[in-house]
Amino acid sequence: MNHPLKPFLDEYVPAINGHLESLVFLDGELEGFAGPLAEAMHYSLEAGGKRLRPILTLMAYRMLAPDWRRALPVAAAYELVHTYSLIHDDLPAMDDDDLRRGRPTNHRIYGEALAILAGDGLLTEAFRLLTENVAAAPEVVVKLVAGLSRAAGSRGMVGGQAIDILIQGKKTGREKTLLEVLHRRKTGALISASLLAGIDLADGSPELRSRLAEFGEVIGLAFQVADDILDEIGDEASLGKDIGSDRELDKLTFVSLFGLDGARDRLAGLHAQARTLLVPLGPAAAGLRAVADYIVERDR
Amino acid sequence: MNHPLKPFLDEYVPAINGHLESLVFLDGELEGFAGPLAEAMHYSLEAGGKRLRPILTLMAYRMLAPDWRRALPVAAAYELVHTYSLIHDDLPAMDDDDLRRGRPTNHRIYGEALAILAGDGLLTEAFRLLTENVAAAPEVVVKLVAGLSRAAGSRGMVGGQAIDILIQGKKTGREKTLLEVLHRRKTGALISASLLAGIDLADGSPELRSRLAEFGEVIGLAFQVADDILDEIGDEASLGKDIGSDRELDKLTFVSLFGLDGARDRLAGLHAQARTLLVPLGPAAAGLRAVADYIVERDR
Repeated sequence: MNHPLKPFLDEYVPAINGHLESLVFLDGELEGFAGPLAEAMHYSLEAGGKRLRPILTLMAYRMLAPDWRRALPVAAAYELVHTYSLIHDDLPAMDDDDLRRGRPTNHRIYGEALAILAGDGLLTEAFRLLTENVAAAPEVVVKLVAGLSRAAGSRGMVGGQAIDILIQGKKTGREKTLLEVLHRRKTGALISASLLAGIDLADGSPELRSRLAEFGEVIGLAFQVADDILDEIGDEASLGKDIGSDRELDKLTFVSLFGLDGARDRLAGLHAQARTLLVPLGPAAAGLRAVADYIVERDR
Repeated sequence: MNHPLKPFLDEYVPAINGHLESLVFLDGELEGFAGPLAEAMHYSLEAGGKRLRPILTLMAYRMLAPDWRRALPVAAAYELVHTYSLIHDDLPAMDDDDLRRGRPTNHRIYGEALAILAGDGLLTEAFRLLTENVAAAPEVVVKLVAGLSRAAGSRGMVGGQAIDILIQGKKTGREKTLLEVLHRRKTGALISASLLAGIDLADGSPELRSRLAEFGEVIGLAFQVADDILDEIGDEASLGKDIGSDRELDKLTFVSLFGLDGARDRLAGLHAQARTLLVPLGPAAAGLRAVADYIVERDR
């Protein structure tokens, strides 16, 4: 990879991975009885994802303060929540996927019951991390918990996922609105919140907060459009999940709704919008600019 | 019902139910798209449970402060987490139950996918309630989030549930230790934490905190022993769930391990221990005393 994002990844990803690996989900007494639960939680957590959300937390924080490692527990909390959502999404009752990030999905290794619990555990532990591992004033911790719970809950990610389930195979006549609402909630909310968490931890201004919230929504949507394009044209090896699975399920996607060219136009528009939002932030936003570029260029 | 607990139930349960019914899980935009998610969340939340955990929060708070309605959002958060755990426990991949509290289980009405999401949503919304609906200083809110996340996560309820899954059909040779660890985590941790949440909200002393933590663990265990006894001798109508389902699954229970008389002796011992812990608290603990008595007398 020779991309402007590379130096940022080289710096942040090992730190994020190291922090995630160091997390202890059981105490001594439980270790002997519930070991496979912690194993299942770490299995998906360390399956080598892109770490987009924690990277965004670190980048946003670093725009305001140099000691970015202080933001690692907050960044980790976002990766825990993202990982829980993938485990539950992959379940037979949901998308029924066998592969994720090139490896068998959690329930294919640990069984459905433990996979459900591993997801539940990761979600709950994310909130414990925020209260026990973050060095910040109580007002800040409360803001962090509020931001994460709102973005991940029924008004955010879970709500978006519910729409995704509810519309399968149904024609509503308002597909275009619906697709945007779905992805703003399912993906955009958590991506935006991961940026805002970095700003909140560094006590950033309301102006910066609202600018980055919008940036997060835009790249969240771009990410999903790119994903839909990749699902249409990608190959199994590079994507690491079942290809064409969206089409098989007759899923509503940006490609199914706007065609491949239409989806590509939409992606270009979102990319321009994201870059415009960063202009006033100058060189401090170099990392975020690289993320926006990377999301768009993934499909090449 | 003519029990010393009745006046307490008459006062608290309508307030708890009213508060739960008033919770809004979606915003205007989502209402039209994800309505069934909120419906599924409210379905299980309002299935008429015993409300044990929220009652304990209110009782603990009221030992220290008269304005118990202030503790309702905290009490509600505990009921949300308890309800999520029931929805996930009932899933086909877990206990595969068709009935809960005398009504079809969540997934029997809404399907597995939405039931999983309803559980995820309730768990996440519990944390949102603590940060958005509780009138308390940030230090207190952080304590509340820490207490709930620790009790509900992999070191608490989820860890206990994982043990329950992992031991099914296995002989380990250390069944007696295991059964206690399992239930202290699966049931005791959240019951204890629901009491401590009331104490924390009212800024109670560390001494009272640790006394009630122990009381919570003891009645949590008593509750489970009583449950195992009821499962053995109860009838479907009064319990509202499938009878003998534990035995069918060859589950480890206090009855299967100690016999019916042994389990009854254990229950009596726990009851005495719970009452002894309350002695120094005098008349202020009348409500908690009634709860301890009620748990034991349920099997008559």
